[in-house]
Amino acid sequence: MTAPGSTAPVLVPQVLDRCRALVRPALAEAVGRLHPWVGEMAAYALGWCEVGGAPAAAPGGKGVRQALAVLGARAAGAPERAGVAAAVAVELVHTFSLLHDDIMDGDASRRRRPAVWKAYGTGPAVLAGDALFALAVRTLAGEPGGPAGVRALSAALDDLVRGQADDLLFAARPWTGPRRVRPEEYRVMAEHKTGALLGCAAALGAVLGGAAPGTAAVLDRAGRHLGVAFQIVDDVLGIWGDPSVTGKPVHGDLRERKRTFPVLAALDSPAAGRLTALLETGAEPGRAAALIEEAGGRRAALAEAHRHLTAVEDALSGAPLETTAAGELRSLLDFLVRRDL
Amino acid sequence: MTAPGSTAPVLVPQVLDRCRALVRPALAEAVGRLHPWVGEMAAYALGWCEVGGAPAAAPGGKGVRQALAVLGARAAGAPERAGVAAAVAVELVHTFSLLHDDIMDGDASRRRRPAVWKAYGTGPAVLAGDALFALAVRTLAGEPGGPAGVRALSAALDDLVRGQADDLLFAARPWTGPRRVRPEEYRVMAEHKTGALLGCAAALGAVLGGAAPGTAAVLDRAGRHLGVAFQIVDDVLGIWGDPSVTGKPVHGDLRERKRTFPVLAALDSPAAGRLTALLETGAEPGRAAALIEEAGGRRAALAEAHRHLTAVEDALSGAPLETTAAGELRSLLDFLVRRDL
Repeated sequence: MTAPGSTAPVLVPQVLDRCRALVRPALAEAVGRLHPWVGEMAAYALGWCEVGGAPAAAPGGKGVRQALAVLGARAAGAPERAGVAAAVAVELVHTFSLLHDDIMDGDASRRRRPAVWKAYGTGPAVLAGDALFALAVRTLAGEPGGPAGVRALSAALDDLVRGQADDLLFAARPWTGPRRVRPEEYRVMAEHKTGALLGCAAALGAVLGGAAPGTAAVLDRAGRHLGVAFQIVDDVLGIWGDPSVTGKPVHGDLRERKRTFPVLAALDSPAAGRLTALLETGAEPGRAAALIEEAGGRRAALAEAHRHLTAVEDALSGAPLETTAAGELRSLLDFLVRRDL
Repeated sequence: MTAPGSTAPVLVPQVLDRCRALVRPALAEAVGRLHPWVGEMAAYALGWCEVGGAPAAAPGGKGVRQALAVLGARAAGAPERAGVAAAVAVELVHTFSLLHDDIMDGDASRRRRPAVWKAYGTGPAVLAGDALFALAVRTLAGEPGGPAGVRALSAALDDLVRGQADDLLFAARPWTGPRRVRPEEYRVMAEHKTGALLGCAAALGAVLGGAAPGTAAVLDRAGRHLGVAFQIVDDVLGIWGDPSVTGKPVHGDLRERKRTFPVLAALDSPAAGRLTALLETGAEPGRAAALIEEAGGRRAALAEAHRHLTAVEDALSGAPLETTAAGELRSLLDFLVRRDL
């Protein structure tokens, strides 16, 4: 993979490793300031330890948001370390949101381990999420450039909650008729639930790196489009992906009767009638998947994802960004979305 | 009740009413910015509506924290309206913490109505709490004087989580032996869980009112001592109070085997042995209450509460506060703690 404007190929896993290594001490120091019991839950959620505190056997998350923050600072012409506080804050907020979302969605596992609420109990998991949230705000509030950063983070948090509320409410709506969920509503939900924090990560890094407001706004917009594309690709993989690669059960989203983009797009087609009965029961997900594809749901989803990736590219190419960082950002975004398609 | 330095008696319910009326439009506007579904849960939690959105039959909370914020601004020599954003933020944080604490503690009712998690479900209640928290930060982050305010609020949030963590862990500790909960640990827990936000409320109002850091620190200290006194008085009323006045079931705290100050103090006495067996089962709470009183638990609790009230008075009298506001603050604190003793 070669980023435009650079001669060497960008190896995304190495970029992620480098950013994680840069952020880890500050993130560990922040988590270390928590109440010890809450700190253990946070470390478990971050993939650093098992229940009881022993070092973790499995690796944690990729650290996409912290990388975006670090690269955002550098894209603004600052050294990467200028984005570290932003990286810590967004990683804490991301961990908080996974923790609480798993409770709300009743998801019992996360990254092939029991979710925090399964491992420690619902009440403690609520508390651990709250603690991570408070710590994120506190981390940013103490920084130079913090006020603008806190405003950006709290706006993203607002969107995050809004997206999760819509997502929860979608499940209670009918598959057909005027109250059905439209693809456009889904797009807004995905932008809030996934895009807002990705955009905030890159923008926050840029803000702490001293970027002009216009540059931060461009990075925010790029991250939001990336979030929508990422969510739609995730939906496609959830129906047609290879479970040995995605780590998700075959047709899991169809069995759980989730409103995903390919499904909503198919329901906007003449095939909606036959599909609805299959979707309502969640039975015969293989047949439902075939019908969704036949109705153009997969094609429409990939076209929509592509539109958002083009918007990411348009946003980035119009901004005065430092060349190497911009190349790494592009490669990272590409890596995230193209994955296993 | 006459406040020092003023000739007219201070009628605390009127002070609370005045502050609530001043803050209400801004609080309603903030809540109105939430996702509509989340906003209904917030309005229910604030005592403004019933499930479904119809106007509430019962009154909401007294609004102590918002009054402290408003009086904090005035005590710093600013007009009361300078404290409104602080009042909104602390009221949102207080509502968030009640909402999540009820989930953690399994408390099914609050102010004689179903708790939010009982009325709307656990997942939605987690989300509503998160939304209130985010809204509080956002409200403050947009204010002039906001950065110092956000720092103060996030420090209080940190303490709030710490206090709740300790409170949850106390329940799993033995009644006797070296691992028992000491009264001193309880004091620290109560300062974090109850005092931090009361102190923050008054201090935040003062900060937005342009107070010198020393003045804000004095108000913070006074609020923290008030919190400890309030919590201990609450414990005493939970054992010996008149249920028709307190609205709490007789001996409810003993039945639920809660670690409260009078109990912990009694367990530090030679009567601990006989008491432990009774406390462990939660049976015969009337006999347990008599034993706790005999062992000096009630007396020790009231003495400790008195010490903290003296500390409140010492803090306030050493600070350069506007006279009328200081008088109202004193009367409010007095009203809160003396209640029905």
